[in-house]
Amino acid sequence: MTKKQSIQQGDTVALVDEKQRVYLINTNRSTDKFKGVGVFNPKDLIDYEYGSQKTIGSKTFFLLPVAIPDALTGLKRKAQIILPKDSAQIIINCSITPGKTVLEAGVGSGSLTTVLSSIVGETGQVISYDNRQDFIDHAKKNLTTSQLLDRVTLKNKDVTKGISETELDAIILDIPNPWEAIPHAWKALTPGGYLCTYSPLISQVEQSVEEIRKHPFITIKTVELIEREMIVGERGTRPSFNMLGHSGYLTFARKILKTD
Amino acid sequence: MTKKQSIQQGDTVALVDEKQRVYLINTNRSTDKFKGVGVFNPKDLIDYEYGSQKTIGSKTFFLLPVAIPDALTGLKRKAQIILPKDSAQIIINCSITPGKTVLEAGVGSGSLTTVLSSIVGETGQVISYDNRQDFIDHAKKNLTTSQLLDRVTLKNKDVTKGISETELDAIILDIPNPWEAIPHAWKALTPGGYLCTYSPLISQVEQSVEEIRKHPFITIKTVELIEREMIVGERGTRPSFNMLGHSGYLTFARKILKTD
Amino acid sequence: MTKKQSIQQGDTVALVDEKQRVYLINTNRSTDKFKGVGVFNPKDLIDYEYGSQKTIGSKTFFLLPVAIPDALTGLKRKAQIILPKDSAQIIINCSITPGKTVLEAGVGSGSLTTVLSSIVGETGQVISYDNRQDFIDHAKKNLTTSQLLDRVTLKNKDVTKGISETELDAIILDIPNPWEAIPHAWKALTPGGYLCTYSPLISQVEQSVEEIRKHPFITIKTVELIEREMIVGERGTRPSFNMLGHSGYLTFARKILKTD
Amino acid sequence: MTKKQSIQQGDTVALVDEKQRVYLINTNRSTDKFKGVGVFNPKDLIDYEYGSQKTIGSKTFFLLPVAIPDALTGLKRKAQIILPKDSAQIIINCSITPGKTVLEAGVGSGSLTTVLSSIVGETGQVISYDNRQDFIDHAKKNLTTSQLLDRVTLKNKDVTKGISETELDAIILDIPNPWEAIPHAWKALTPGGYLCTYSPLISQVEQSVEEIRKHPFITIKTVELIEREMIVGERGTRPSFNMLGHSGYLTFARKILKTD
Repeated sequence: MTKKQSIQQGDTVALVDEKQRVYLINTNRSTDKFKGVGVFNPKDLIDYEYGSQKTIGSKTFFLLPVAIPDALTGLKRKAQIILPKDSAQIIINCSITPGKTVLEAGVGSGSLTTVLSSIVGETGQVISYDNRQDFIDHAKKNLTTSQLLDRVTLKNKDVTKGISETELDAIILDIPNPWEAIPHAWKALTPGGYLCTYSPLISQVEQSVEEIRKHPFITIKTVELIEREMIVGERGTRPSFNMLGHSGYLTFARKILKTD
Repeated sequence: MTKKQSIQQGDTVALVDEKQRVYLINTNRSTDKFKGVGVFNPKDLIDYEYGSQKTIGSKTFFLLPVAIPDALTGLKRKAQIILPKDSAQIIINCSITPGKTVLEAGVGSGSLTTVLSSIVGETGQVISYDNRQDFIDHAKKNLTTSQLLDRVTLKNKDVTKGISETELDAIILDIPNPWEAIPHAWKALTPGGYLCTYSPLISQVEQSVEEIRKHPFITIKTVELIEREMIVGERGTRPSFNMLGHSGYLTFARKILKTD
Repeated sequence: MTKKQSIQQGDTVALVDEKQRVYLINTNRSTDKFKGVGVFNPKDLIDYEYGSQKTIGSKTFFLLPVAIPDALTGLKRKAQIILPKDSAQIIINCSITPGKTVLEAGVGSGSLTTVLSSIVGETGQVISYDNRQDFIDHAKKNLTTSQLLDRVTLKNKDVTKGISETELDAIILDIPNPWEAIPHAWKALTPGGYLCTYSPLISQVEQSVEEIRKHPFITIKTVELIEREMIVGERGTRPSFNMLGHSGYLTFARKILKTD
Repeated sequence: MTKKQSIQQGDTVALVDEKQRVYLINTNRSTDKFKGVGVFNPKDLIDYEYGSQKTIGSKTFFLLPVAIPDALTGLKRKAQIILPKDSAQIIINCSITPGKTVLEAGVGSGSLTTVLSSIVGETGQVISYDNRQDFIDHAKKNLTTSQLLDRVTLKNKDVTKGISETELDAIILDIPNPWEAIPHAWKALTPGGYLCTYSPLISQVEQSVEEIRKHPFITIKTVELIEREMIVGERGTRPSFNMLGHSGYLTFARKILKTD
């Protein structure tokens, strides 16, 4: 297997500046002013080796292939995003693997969509419902940039009104009222498939768990993930003073055919 | 696409009891006494629908396809394992996706191996070094049970002595002295590839970060993930009294060709 | 000012063994079998210097004056106790200082009573309500051992039925239904006095805060304190693997005369 | 005992605005412009009932007796302060009670001094070393405002050069190099007295614990306190998004006469 070591026509490239900010730019685009980068012609990136540096205007950038952290850092935000610490838990706890078919609602800015579609790969499928067309359009732009759109089906649809797909491997609900979609979710899941709800409020968790318990689900579990960065300095190490106090609670459950 | 809805000859099945304990049993095995399950013939599982129940002896089990959480819960432990909360971060922060080639050292009981090989899929590859043959043999059994062994190459090899592979997408070091392997890791990684070290002690983090800073790596970051379960009871919700105080610190870095 | 450097007749002494376990023994007691210590005559402790060691049977103990941590560690438990991390917050956030008059309900095993009465000192007063005589009797024994009973008035009384005292500096409610006592608490507090509720469940916090907001209280705040021990070992430092996941939420509020 | 229910000449009053900001003003002061309050004559506060409201300019304030949280919130900051969550632990773990004699170094802005002197009361004593006169002068102003200066002895002195006091009940070290003061601290403590170091960095903790272990101390323990605020809103409850990631590690130890 030979690897693509230099930038090709059509690649989206992650430009990382010295402050670790990431800018995603596709080499098919024309000369333009790119926010944070400046005016330049993306075609100039072609043939540069991945891992090398390029100076554009007064700034120097590392040129890297787009990895998941780049796609997330470079994502343009419109709505609140699901953080990597939380989408990572969703991947493992919902057993998202290559080839799986996964539904999420809503799509927001497409941050979870980015992670899900990266993991299910070319053989998998992500279906994303949102009842706001502006979010769908915005997520579409982000997924186009990160070259993941081919695995994603975006639908303007309210998940609490019903789910048209069946035999889904996992359903992730990031909406204010997930309990209203849970009966539909049970029907749409394949046996052994996973349901996940993401909610910032305890009251949302309680309503969701109450609804989940009315349906044939097992291994119901609610967790919270707290991420703490450690700063390794010259004089010693300490936790970072900056820390996000809260994002959301994740509730997981697994469909069975019926409980007695 | 039609899904396999009933248990087939050759499947490994997750038997989940009412206390959520998971037992992994392959239908190719013969009648035997299975710990936690009792004496029975695994072939009796064939043709049961996934998601249905079966009583074996005095216990009733849900029959489920093996998902990542099952493979981890059902794993037989010999060494300390990397917990799902931490392996999840590794997946996202190292951008492990289908088709990637990843090296880990050491293999331990194969818990991280299970997650990595589930995510890289059939088109990917996990290379696992360990300098203890007993760990390799033990991990091999676990990976055989979870039917992931075809994507894993187990090697009795000390990663601090060198890495024979090149152009690796990610290298994860779970050894007591990761700093001794870091120069080899830099060479073995593809540009833009990720290095990760997992260490319980601050002193290990400091030595690793110091060594990483001597080589062309960017976006160096150390984090700790704290998982907190929430108990949703009849009278209300609270965090679980049981909580693991610590597992390990995760340090991530990304290879570039050179720094000036 | 000369300090009492050696053990006197009538002192309660903290005997600390090599595993840091604490046994509180009063020198007025007669020869007996003391749990964890063995058979001996407490009068033998007299004239030993504080800070010195004494061997009793096969064990060696450090002889120390009874400090707050000793009184808490040596406390005999009957009910769930309020942990030092939480009672510490109550002291500071309710401004418990020497000479203050404080009411708590219920008394439980007397752990918070121990801390409150240590801090209000000889010139202060702690009034402790409990509607179970067995808890009152049990707490009384603990307070007798730690020589704090002279500052405490124990009452068999249900705080949700009313508070007979007035002009209290602080009221701390550690009962399952604190909201039922809050109207009484407002009346019984002096202007500027503090109310505190301690509750393990979010639903209890919500009902308490809702009730507090109906009365003239300001600076309403709910906090949770997470204590993490660090283990400093020979090879390096790490957080302890053992950690209590949760104790209770503390809600604080301050009485004013009226809100407009 | 009759309580002072209205503001008297000479009182320092806590003015609390609707955003819970606290301004400490002494009624002995003359008409002036007070930051956050505006121009007014503090003598106008006399005879107002504590707990009542007063409008000054366009703002309305609650008038409250100065409690510990007011003294800390109203403190003018010059250096990094020790937070209430941490000073609370120091009080309980060092058994600071009325009448005790406690030494702290350095004084900083006087935040820990405020708490310590509030708790030791009129019969106790706080000795505060700092080797910067500007910090001493600044802390003195804060302690004058909160009317606690009579219990505090401020000294321009480097604690690593020696401690002149003896038989101290507790010593708290909030300096960058606490290990250099530990031999002096052991000598200056009474048997059974407590040592505490407060340090942001793990390396400082390690050096301190190493030094403590060279001297006759027992019950050596390092802890970190994480405070999390809960927001009780109309739609439900959640942890606050704002959270301080780290303040410092607290190490506690207790003097004994000698170890064998």
